This record gives sequence, C-alpha cells and structure tokens, in this order.
Amino acid sequence: MKILVINGPNLNMLGKREPEIYGSDTLEAIEVEIARRASDLGMKVYFFQSNIEGEIINAIQNAECDGIILNAGAFSHYSYAIRDAIRSVDTPVVEVHLTNIYAREDFRHKSVLADVCAGQISGFGKHSYILALEYFKFSLEK
Amino acid sequence: MKILVINGPNLNMLGKREPEIYGSDTLEAIEVEIARRASDLGMKVYFFQSNIEGEIINAIQNAECDGIILNAGAFSHYSYAIRDAIRSVDTPVVEVHLTNIYAREDFRHKSVLADVCAGQISGFGKHSYILALEYFKFSLEK
Amino acid sequence: MKILVINGPNLNMLGKREPEIYGSDTLEAIEVEIARRASDLGMKVYFFQSNIEGEIINAIQNAECDGIILNAGAFSHYSYAIRDAIRSVDTPVVEVHLTNIYAREDFRHKSVLADVCAGQISGFGKHSYILALEYFKFSLEK
Amino acid sequence: MKILVINGPNLNMLGKREPEIYGSDTLEAIEVEIARRASDLGMKVYFFQSNIEGEIINAIQNAECDGIILNAGAFSHYSYAIRDAIRSVDTPVVEVHLTNIYAREDFRHKSVLADVCAGQISGFGKHSYILALEYFKFSLEK
Amino acid sequence: MKILVINGPNLNMLGKREPEIYGSDTLEAIEVEIARRASDLGMKVYFFQSNIEGEIINAIQNAECDGIILNAGAFSHYSYAIRDAIRSVDTPVVEVHLTNIYAREDFRHKSVLADVCAGQISGFGKHSYILALEYFKFSLEK
Amino acid sequence: MKILVINGPNLNMLGKREPEIYGSDTLEAIEVEIARRASDLGMKVYFFQSNIEGEIINAIQNAECDGIILNAGAFSHYSYAIRDAIRSVDTPVVEVHLTNIYAREDFRHKSVLADVCAGQISGFGKHSYILALEYFKFSLEK
Amino acid sequence: MKILVINGPNLNMLGKREPEIYGSDTLEAIEVEIARRASDLGMKVYFFQSNIEGEIINAIQNAECDGIILNAGAFSHYSYAIRDAIRSVDTPVVEVHLTNIYAREDFRHKSVLADVCAGQISGFGKHSYILALEYFKFSLEK
Amino acid sequence: MKILVINGPNLNMLGKREPEIYGSDTLEAIEVEIARRASDLGMKVYFFQSNIEGEIINAIQNAECDGIILNAGAFSHYSYAIRDAIRSVDTPVVEVHLTNIYAREDFRHKSVLADVCAGQISGFGKHSYILALEYFKFSLEK
Amino acid sequence: MKILVINGPNLNMLGKREPEIYGSDTLEAIEVEIARRASDLGMKVYFFQSNIEGEIINAIQNAECDGIILNAGAFSHYSYAIRDAIRSVDTPVVEVHLTNIYAREDFRHKSVLADVCAGQISGFGKHSYILALEYFKFSLEK
Amino acid sequence: MKILVINGPNLNMLGKREPEIYGSDTLEAIEVEIARRASDLGMKVYFFQSNIEGEIINAIQNAECDGIILNAGAFSHYSYAIRDAIRSVDTPVVEVHLTNIYAREDFRHKSVLADVCAGQISGFGKHSYILALEYFKFSLEK
Amino acid sequence: MKILVINGPNLNMLGKREPEIYGSDTLEAIEVEIARRASDLGMKVYFFQSNIEGEIINAIQNAECDGIILNAGAFSHYSYAIRDAIRSVDTPVVEVHLTNIYAREDFRHKSVLADVCAGQISGFGKHSYILALEYFKFSLEK
Amino acid sequence: MKILVINGPNLNMLGKREPEIYGSDTLEAIEVEIARRASDLGMKVYFFQSNIEGEIINAIQNAECDGIILNAGAFSHYSYAIRDAIRSVDTPVVEVHLTNIYAREDFRHKSVLADVCAGQISGFGKHSYILALEYFKFSLEK
Repeated sequence: MKILVINGPNLNMLGKREPEIYGSDTLEAIEVEIARRASDLGMKVYFFQSNIEGEIINAIQNAECDGIILNAGAFSHYSYAIRDAIRSVDTPVVEVHLTNIYAREDFRHKSVLADVCAGQISGFGKHSYILALEYFKFSLEK
Repeated sequence: MKILVINGPNLNMLGKREPEIYGSDTLEAIEVEIARRASDLGMKVYFFQSNIEGEIINAIQNAECDGIILNAGAFSHYSYAIRDAIRSVDTPVVEVHLTNIYAREDFRHKSVLADVCAGQISGFGKHSYILALEYFKFSLEK
Repeated sequence: MKILVINGPNLNMLGKREPEIYGSDTLEAIEVEIARRASDLGMKVYFFQSNIEGEIINAIQNAECDGIILNAGAFSHYSYAIRDAIRSVDTPVVEVHLTNIYAREDFRHKSVLADVCAGQISGFGKHSYILALEYFKFSLEK
Repeated sequence: MKILVINGPNLNMLGKREPEIYGSDTLEAIEVEIARRASDLGMKVYFFQSNIEGEIINAIQNAECDGIILNAGAFSHYSYAIRDAIRSVDTPVVEVHLTNIYAREDFRHKSVLADVCAGQISGFGKHSYILALEYFKFSLEK
Repeated sequence: MKILVINGPNLNMLGKREPEIYGSDTLEAIEVEIARRASDLGMKVYFFQSNIEGEIINAIQNAECDGIILNAGAFSHYSYAIRDAIRSVDTPVVEVHLTNIYAREDFRHKSVLADVCAGQISGFGKHSYILALEYFKFSLEK
Repeated sequence: MKILVINGPNLNMLGKREPEIYGSDTLEAIEVEIARRASDLGMKVYFFQSNIEGEIINAIQNAECDGIILNAGAFSHYSYAIRDAIRSVDTPVVEVHLTNIYAREDFRHKSVLADVCAGQISGFGKHSYILALEYFKFSLEK
Repeated sequence: MKILVINGPNLNMLGKREPEIYGSDTLEAIEVEIARRASDLGMKVYFFQSNIEGEIINAIQNAECDGIILNAGAFSHYSYAIRDAIRSVDTPVVEVHLTNIYAREDFRHKSVLADVCAGQISGFGKHSYILALEYFKFSLEK
Repeated sequence: MKILVINGPNLNMLGKREPEIYGSDTLEAIEVEIARRASDLGMKVYFFQSNIEGEIINAIQNAECDGIILNAGAFSHYSYAIRDAIRSVDTPVVEVHLTNIYAREDFRHKSVLADVCAGQISGFGKHSYILALEYFKFSLEK
Repeated sequence: MKILVINGPNLNMLGKREPEIYGSDTLEAIEVEIARRASDLGMKVYFFQSNIEGEIINAIQNAECDGIILNAGAFSHYSYAIRDAIRSVDTPVVEVHLTNIYAREDFRHKSVLADVCAGQISGFGKHSYILALEYFKFSLEK
Repeated sequence: MKILVINGPNLNMLGKREPEIYGSDTLEAIEVEIARRASDLGMKVYFFQSNIEGEIINAIQNAECDGIILNAGAFSHYSYAIRDAIRSVDTPVVEVHLTNIYAREDFRHKSVLADVCAGQISGFGKHSYILALEYFKFSLEK
Repeated sequence: MKILVINGPNLNMLGKREPEIYGSDTLEAIEVEIARRASDLGMKVYFFQSNIEGEIINAIQNAECDGIILNAGAFSHYSYAIRDAIRSVDTPVVEVHLTNIYAREDFRHKSVLADVCAGQISGFGKHSYILALEYFKFSLEK
Repeated sequence: MKILVINGPNLNMLGKREPEIYGSDTLEAIEVEIARRASDLGMKVYFFQSNIEGEIINAIQNAECDGIILNAGAFSHYSYAIRDAIRSVDTPVVEVHLTNIYAREDFRHKSVLADVCAGQISGFGKHSYILALEYFKFSLEK
C-alpha cells in the first residue's frame, strides 16, 4: 500500500514562521513522523511539496499510489483546477489541514476541493496527516 | 482516559433508513466498534444519543470526561445553543460526520459548531469516530 | 388506512390568541372536524402536538401509519432536524399551513421541509388539513 | 357555483413530454377528471389554456365565475403582470402545481403569485386541481 | 407634434379595482383628460393599451410620433424585451407611473426600463401623464 | 400658494463643472426660470441651497409653505436623517433630479427619500423643477 | 405586580465559565439580586431556566404574570418558535442580554425576537435584568 | 435535414437601429445568407420571428424539424416559459447571440435557457447562426 | 456625577409630529422628566440637540462628564463618523431609542454605533433615557 | 493564416477519465481532427497544453498567429491573470468549452475570460474547436 | 505650487486617543512635519480640519490650489456628497489614510471616494501625507 | 538597505499594450527610474518579474532584503497563496498599483493582499513604486 502526501504553497515554511499558528515543527520533521507511522502500519509514503498550482496538478495526475493525502494550503480555497485534477483520477484523496480552517479568516471557511475528496480532516496539527494514514489503512484493507 | 460520544437527531435511525447514504450499520453496531477500539487504546467510552437539542446541551455541560466526540447531525448547521454549550466547558470537542457534508445539500456545507471545536473529521463513515478516538489518544497523552 | 396529524409549536394556542390571523377555532375543535371527515372517508386519524422539536422528531420516527399530515409551525422554517426525520422514514408526509405563509413575514416564505414532503397545502385554514386527508384518500387507495 | 381552471405555458404538452416528471396523463384527460369531480360536487368548471402571458391576464380579468384555479406554469416565477391581474379582480384564486415546486430547480422555489392567491397546493399531480375544487366547495358554500 | 401614450397590463382595469391605490378614474376618463390638455398645448395624442408584452413592443417599434409616454405597469419591473424595444427606436420615451412605485412592494422599486428612457415621473396619479406631456412640449419645441 | 425649492450639496456648482452631465445653466439661472414660471402660475417660490445635511433638515422643519421641491443631490442616496425630516412635517415634498439617476452610477439608483415623498421626477434637467411646480399647481388647487 | 424571569440555554453555567465575557456571578447570585430589587420596588419575581427551546415556549404560554423578562441566550438568534410564543400571549416581554450582543460574533447581531418584544436592553450585565424590572415598574403602574 | 431558425423580440429591427452594436445587416439579409449556407450543406432552413413570448413557445412546440437555432433576444434572460418549452420537445436547440452577451449589460450575462440547450454560440455576429448550422451538420449526420 | 444627554436629528420635533409613533411628549417635557429623575438619583444632567452630524461629534469630543446618553436618531444607522467619535473618547456612552428600532423599517434594524457603546436600550419611550440614567447610577458608583 | 490552440489544466487527461462527461477521445485525437479540418480550410494550427496558469499566459503573450482558440479549463472561472493576458495582445481569442458549462456545477457558470474574448462556443464537444476554426476562416478572410 | 491638506472628522483627536491605532503624534505635530517637508520641496501647504461633512465640501469647492490631500476619515466610507464635490472641481485630489484601512473593520474596506481621486495612499501613518506631497511634486512639475 | 521589487503577471507587457491605461513606459524603463531614485536615496534595488504565481511565492520566501515592493497584477485579486507567502516572512511588503484599481473593473476593487501588507499605494503610475521606495527610506531608517 503506497500513499502520496502532497503539500501546497507555503507549507515549506512550516516551523520557520508563525509558529503560534502552525506550530514549531518543520515540514521535514512532520514528514519523518508520518513516514515512521506509515512504516508501523505497513504502508509506504512519498512526499511532494510545491508552491506552483500546476505542479500539484501534475503530481495528482501522475501519482502511482493507492491514496493521496493533500494539504493544498491556500489553493484549497480557490483552485478549481486542482479540484478538476482530483476528479480526473481514480485515486482516493483525503483533504487535510493543520489548523482548524473554520476558526480562521473567512476565506478559509470554504474549501473548493472538499466535495470531490473522500473526506476532510481539519485542525489536528501534524495528527491530521496521521489520521488520514489510519483512514487509508482501514479503508484500503477492507 | 474517558471519552463521551454524543450522537444527535436521527442518528438512532442509522442502518434502518437511507443505507445508500449512511451505510447499513446500526448505531449500536458502530458503538460496539468504537468501544472495542477504545479498549484497544486503553480508553473508556460512554455513549449518549438524543433527538432533543436541549438534552445534548445538558450532556455537554454535565460531561465528566477528557474529551467529547460529537456528531450533532442536522443541529450542526443551526444550533448556536449547542455551540455556546461547547464554549461553556473546558473539555475538548471533536466534531465528526459520517458522510462528507461538503458533498451533500447546501445547508450541510456550514457547521456553526466547527470553529469552537478542536477540529473536524468528515466523510469517513464509522471511521470518523475512530479517527477522533485516535486523536484523543495522541493529544491527551502528550 | 391510518393517518397521524402532527402539530408543532404554539398550535396548542389556536383559538386563544391572534384569532384575526389564525381564526377562532381551537386546536381541539379542528381535530374533531378532521376526525369526523376522516371517519366519512373511512380513515383513522391520530393526533400529536408538541412545542419540543425533538418530540416531533420522535413522533415521526415512531409513527405507525400510512401517512403523516404535518403542520410544523415555526419549525418549518429552520428545523433541518425535522427535515432529516422525514427523510429517515418511508411514510409519506404532507406539509400543511393554516395561513398562506407566502403572504406573511419574510422568514415564513421558505420551508426547509417542503422539498422532502410529498406536497404542500398552504392558506386554507382548517381545510388545509382536510384537503391533505383527501389527498391521502386518493393516493393511498390507488 | 362556477369555477374557471386556467393552465399556463407548456401545460398543453402534458402527457407528451417528460412523463417521468409530469406523469402520463394529457391535459385533456386531466380536465375530464376535474369536470367529473366538479359534477359530483355540484359545480361547473370551464377550462382555458394559453402559452401567452397577456391572454392569461385577459382570462383572469374577464372571468365570470366564483373561483379560479390557476396553474401558471413557469409564469408563476416571474410574471408580476399576472400577479397584478389577480389583485385587480375580486374572484378568489387558488394556485396549483402538479409537481412539488420546492423539490425542483431553484427558480421554481419562489412563486410571485403566491401571496396574492387564497392559498397554494403543490405536488399532488392532478389531485392538486381536485383539492382546489374541494376547497372552493367548502369555502364558497360557507 | 404627435405623442403616443402606451398603457401596459391591467391598466385597462383602472377605476374598477383597488381604487384606494389607483384612484377612481377609469383609463378612458384619464385618456380624455390627457387629450384635452394635449389639445390645449397644441399636441396630438394617440392611445394604446395591451396586456400582451409583445404587442407593446410592436407598438413602440411602429410608433410614428415625436414622443412616447409609457406606463408599462408590471412589465416595467422585468421586461428586458420592452427595454430593448425602447433602445431600438429613436423616439424619446418618458416612463410614467400613477403611484409612487418606491412606496409599494419591493419588486416595484426597480424599473428595468428607467435607464433607457429620457426620464421618469412617478407618483402623481393622472398628473404623471400630463407632466410628461408638458415635458415633451418644452423639450421638443426647443 | 408658496413653494420652497431646496437644493442640496454641490448644486451650487451647476454650470461651472461637468456641463456634459448637468448642463451649462447655473443654479441662479435655473432659479430665475423657476421663479418666472411660478409667477405665470400665480405661485410664490423661495430658494435654499446648502452643502450641510443638517441645514437642509432645518430648512424642511422650518418651512412655512404649501409644498417643497427637493433636489437633495448625493444626500438622496444615504441621508435617512433628511428622510425622517420629510416625515416629520405635513408639507408635501416632491423629489426632483436634473439627471436620470437610473442611467448613472449604481449608488444613484436608490433614493432613500423616494418612498416618503409625494412623487419623483428624474431626468428632465431644469424642467424637473418646473414639472414639480405644475404638479403643485394641479394638486394644491384641487 | 408579578414578573417572570426566563433564562435560556447555557445561562445556568454563568459564573462557572468564560467569566471574562459573562462576569463571575452565578445565575443564582444574579437571581438573588433581582429578587431583592423587585422586593424594594414592591414586585414579585419568579425564575425559570431551561436548555430546551420547547420548555421555554411552554413557560411563556403558561406564564401567569404581568410581564416577562427574557434572556433567551443563543435561541434569540434563530428560534422563530419562541418568537411565535411571545406573539401568542398578551403579556409584555422585555428582551435582555448580559453582554452587548452587537459587539460580539456576527450571528449574535440579529435577534429574531426583538421586533415582537416591548423593547430590548443589551450590554449592562446583571443590570440588564434590573433595568427591565424598573421598566415594568414604570409602565405597569401607569 | 430540416432546421428551424427562431428570432425573438426586436431582432426584426436588425440593421435599422444601433448598427454600432448589432451591425448593419437586416434580419432578411442574414436569413438569406443562412439559407445559402444551408443549401451548400444540403440542409433546409425555415425562419420564424416574433416579439411575443408565447408565439415563440408555440413555434418550439410545433416545430417539425431536426434542430432549432434560437436567438431569443432579451427573453433569453428571463423567460423560464421558453426554457420549459425547450425541455418539452425532443428537438435539439442551439442558443445563439449576435453579440458577446458577456461583454454587455449585467442582465445579459445570464441566460436562463443555456443549460437546457445543446450548447451556446455567442459573439460572432451573423456567423453565430452559421456556426450553429455547421454544428447540426456535424452532429445530425453522425 | 454628571451626565450629558445628546439628541440627534429631528428629535426636536418630538410631540409635534407623528405622535402615534413617538408619543405626544415634547423633547422639552422629556428633558424635564430626565432632569427630575437625575436629581432624585443625585446626578446632574446636561442636554444637547442638533440636526448636524458634525456638531454631535463636537459635543461628544468636548463632553466633560461621566457618561453620555445618546439618541442619535437616523444617524445611528449610517454615521460612522459619530461612531469614531465615540471611540475617540473615554467617556462611556449608552445608546437609547424611544421606539423599538427592530419593529420598524429595515434600515433602522442596524445601528452602526451599537458595538462601540456600553449597551443599548431600545423601545421604552422616554423611559429609555431614564433606564440609561439608572445604569450610570449603578455602574459609576461601583 | 495561423491559429494557436491552447488547452488548459487537466485537458491532457481527456479520454482517460470521466468519459461520460468529456467523451472518449484523447486530446491527441482531437488535435488530429482539428489539424485535418484546418488543412481543409487552408489554415495552419499549432497546439499548446499546460497545467500551469503562468505558462498559458506566456503562450498567449508570445503567440505569433492570427487567432487563438482557448479552452482554459477550470482557469476560465477564476484566472483574472489570463484575462489580462488576453487583453494585453491584439490577437483575437475565441473561448471554447467541450461541455455546456451552463449545465454543470455553479462555479462553471461564470467565465471571467468571456467578456475579453471575441466570442464563446460552449457545449459541442470537439466540434467547439472546429466551429472556432470556421469562425476564424470567415472573419479573418473578410 | 500650493497644496491644501484636508482632515475630516475626529482627526482633531489624533495623539489624544487610541494611540495604539493612530500613533501618538497630534494633528498639529503632523501638520508641522508636512509643512517642513513641503518647504523642502518648494511647495506651500494649507490646512483645514472639520467634523462637519458640508464644510469639507465647501473647502473642496473653494480650494484655490494645485492639489488637495484628503483624509476624509469615516466620511470616506459613505459620503457620496464629498465624492460629488471632488468631481465638481478640476483640482486633483489624493486620498490618504494613516492606517491600513484594509486591515481594520469591514466598513473601512470600501472608500466611496477612491475612484474619483487620482490615487490612494493607505497605511503609512504620517508618511501617507508626505508621500502624497511627493506625488504632487512629481506630477505637477511634469 | 536592500529592496526587492516584484512585478506579477502581464507587467512584462508594459509599454507594448494598452498604453492608454498603463502608459507608454516599458517595465525596463520603469525599473531604470526606480533604480536611479534608489541610488539617490542610498538604497539598493533588485527586480523580479514572473507570470507564474508560485514563482512569486518563491521570490517572497527567498527574498533577502529589508523591504519588498509588490505589484502582483491580477494575482492581487485572488491569490490567497501569495497572501500566505507575505505572512510567512518578516520582511515588510508594500503593495503598489500603476493604475487606480478602484476606478477600473469591479474585480479589481478588492485586493486579497492588502490587509497583510504594510500599506497600499494605488494610481500614481510609475510614481507608485517610487513612493514605496521613499516610504522604506523613512520607515527603515527610523
């Protein structure tokens, strides 16, 4: 079982800026934790990060895996192109957010990706990714 | 570690009606699964279901536990009174939904509870509850 | 053929207050007329009234009848929980209103129940209930 | 007691097109049933159908009857001119719809005629007309 | 100098219905007064009334006159086709209303014709037509 | 018969600026024409202009006349205080505009004064004032 | 003179939670102060609190008193059923709020009860109740 | 293969008015060009124009052809009755506009017909009709 | 303890106009009653009224007192400048309205001053001012 | 005569995914058909596809051709940057869509590109491109 | 080169109140700095402040200068009368704000003056005025 | 002191297209002027332009400078990803626009970047950049 974890714009800055909002872990540190948990669950994970919308679309189209965990950052709120990419593939996608997007600025309250994903996990910090992993464990093994 | 699982209006009908939307498991069957997983994780769970908004408020106010998993059903979309109840207690609350509320009717796209909960897990069927359990395991043991 | 007639909040005050809007018949008097007409049509009717949203949900879930005539009063305009209850049962529901809800305050112009009911009858006073009875007579005998 | 039944645009196509929405009865067949029921109730009915808004206005203005049953079709949703025609006469008008307009496209959710009619009956197929007849029987005989 | 006075839907009912809103003069009586005043001013007036939107469009397109006084009744609020007809001719059009449309129902607060007319006169009863005549006297004689 | 003509903010600049919109007549020149026409009709007119909202309110409250012709300029679109002043006196007020306010910027499409005035005359340049005079002649002599 | 003081959902938590918003007095302490002031004014007060919307409706319908002071908490913002209950009785109702609802979350800016109450007092802490008492003293003794 | 070309209100004025917007060709000249091109493609075309909404509905209902090219003019933006007529027949309809409706007034930006037509061609002057012909050539010959 | 009572536009007309809405007391009579009650409470009151927005701003900025009671009339609904004036001083301000602003025209339902005042008292006629006095008595003596 | 055909995000997936919506032809197959038709018409075509918004902007800015056929996919609905690119060049652009965008999700009903293109062709599958070619043939040869 | 600097309502309170938002400099101190910089640039500056909207209009109309720097305070957000004053003169106006109005309350996000000014400078404290001076230096010397 | 000047999509076309809107200077020419002024002020400037949103994000994240001057072109109006990038760095950003964005199309009236920038300078052509430089000179030297 192979899972691709995609992180969108500005998530490469994790741990460096606004730690009061996003926590003090770097993206690399979070990826290490995800990988460790995946290993415990007998899953493989791959990582991709980009600040460029079109490259995230490419990554989704070219993904060869059983599930995608997607934190599209600010693109979640206006990228209908990423939304179309999700619909254009059969791979199930779980949308995750580090922070509770419903407790932040108005523009973050609506995800244009939500209804074409399998589900959404929002507000649990790095655990959001790990819960998504667990979900794939449950659902793909069925 | 003690967790209260609250289910709101019409969730007592699970498994009996609209299985194409909500699946064929009854609420009792799901509660058994949650309890089993909790036991595996070394946690205790208690269950409460009501179709009456005020009784859910009472349950939240009187809860003696370390975390609440709340599926408020249709109340999620208009009960500012339940929202105030969540704010009136210190116990962290995780909002869960069986279905992906963003892929259904318009009125289900907005939860008035979301921003006062720790986070939201939506769309994973009975796994939504179990992921919430896992989150409490992670976060409360920190 | 058995029909349940459910009346929601404040309809127990019929005949006592605001007769210029709701007429001077009490709820009891109207129920007597409905029962008489049902008897003429060879149907049985049962009555339920409550000011508590959750009890109306319970009544819908537990109804053992061939059709429900529902005047949900003000709940018609915001109770998505009652809406879900209607969807959770197979019994057909006809929504009725004593007054023409489209000729009153703005908030009464939208019923959140309307699209999950078989149909809506609005504005004919006590006849609204009786026309609903007639409909069940026609449609259930088919 | 004399009743005029007015049918608006495209209702002349009943039974010929979209039977999955409007049923398989033709307008003529429905008119026969209405006439038969009227006869049982000791009432006379007259019928008028037009695809032209202004002719419906003329029909309303010139009606010599005790009541009008009006299915204005799509005009229900934007013809303020028909609305003014209803207000310009003393004859009571009952608005009817074959289908449940609240369970269809958004534009059908609002009738601009509703608040100047005596009441509205929506969603009961051909029975919508017959229930309106019954109403006139009750109310005009008072 | 020749002026065409066009009256739209339901204005043929003037004086017969709702005199508390529209006054007790019939359309014929008002036309007589307009004609008398026109004669005093040395102008000729012609009259046209229809309940059919398309016939009003025809009347505007075929008008052979120096100015049009248009009371489009309820069509004022949604007939973009009449609006296009006004733009399709060179004859200046003055929009008039018997009643103050801004003191009535919401839907009457917006005229879709207003911005393509020379001006609007609203609220002066039959004087609205006569003031429009005076305007044409002033402006066409310039 | 005595009429007060009130002009609001920036109308003192008439003829000096933006003649392509407001024409080349100064306010003084227009007042002279109004006075001449009033004299022909056997009426007296008085003039008041201010750029200060509160002074226009004072002028309305203190007016000792049979009618007020009010061009409130930009205040027409937001001064609920002037609206209240109009309601606080018995003197009838006619709202006038030099330009067709419905053919200009969006914010000019709504007058907050319109529904408390006797009527509105918009788009006829200086004739707007003179038509208002004629109206008072007609209506006050009745 | 007898006054009923009704407190809605979560007001039973006063003093226990969010003292930075609601102050540190418990509901009981506030009721004692209200009772003392009532006694000074020669009035009797009775108290009722519930988290259940329908029970508040029952309390309003069954109240035998000269005035009701109502803090409906979050129900103020969506309970059209409570609004109908207020209209269904003759007893005057004064709406009170501990906090300034206009300085808090958006959803608290609109009370659906306000226009059917005698008046509203918002933002004065426990004094809001006492000012309402004073009002009843003034107005009922007239 | 037989095609009906329907033109709605004011299109009979083509070439006579506003040539800067609609071009200088008359409707007759455009029809000649369409007929010529149809002949080249081995298709027959018939033409219908009316300013009356209901007659356009009649034309659609009675059309005996393989395809309809419809320029409904201003009716495109509010005639739900024409929309229903399109749905009531099996004949495919292509919506055309001479001008780019998205580059004109706001009210022209939304066509209420668009979603029930096969497709829309907007902005190519007389070529809009000819492209629609070509489409029918392609698609009907399949 | 010194209190300034500010009345805004048109409140100088109290008692003279629209007594069915505002009561028959003049502003002077109300001020006498306020002064008498203040004297009973051992407080001094000063009065200011103006129809000019800027003078109300000046009055707020220059107030030398312990509290301001402000009835800004129609300015309450759009004067962000008065709002800024309230924020620019330390003196607490209580917003009062004679009538229940929530039971009147739509534009009166929103006060742009409310969230920067200590609280709001609306609907109690002259008692609104007196209740505000009582509040200052309570709160300033603390 | 040289034409550039630009395809935006996810159109590289044509034929591989969601054939029930987009048909079973691959982008390559469609490009072959376009090229063949262009050749018949004596035109040259070039193709460009990208998932990256900025590269589409580059392609538009650098295009050396007589016309651009643009299917911007989901970017059509929010890329004001592509819109500005279209305005920044003199080359005429025709907007095309395979599907009828007005019969799909709400967000596809508005194209932010439409008003700066020559015209729009929507809903004809691969024929949308070919009709655009035909248009350029007509218009560029004029 | 002569520049008029106009400050609107409450800016006379600068430095005295809310220094955490507006800084601790008084208006006088800021004017001294502006004057000094103007002198360096070889320009003359004059200052005007008022809390009265109409006086600001007067100041704009009567300005004899080469440019106006306008901080209209809260009037920026609703005074269409000041907007008309700006349009009524030829003098270029630069709109300035001390604070970043887009980072404050919603009502401050829209300036009704912005589109009739030469440009807007917002958020740079006292430097906003000085940058405006520099702009006039650049542009008026061209 | 080092300043980075970032220009977004289509600004590389400056001087080539739409000179009536954007002026006739090329981006290069403007950069030369900015550099010259920076040199006068003793500052260093660096330039970056891209049509790709993600590259602008990269540029912001990687900037090693004391201030950023950002003209994000059309991205200003929808790129929440660039907004997040600005928040993710400590470097102060000044938003500039060549044209007065409030005097152009509606979509340009709202900048999603404005509230996270230090301030905004809009409408002064190339001087917008130079004023931003001056601001950094003032503020960074403090």
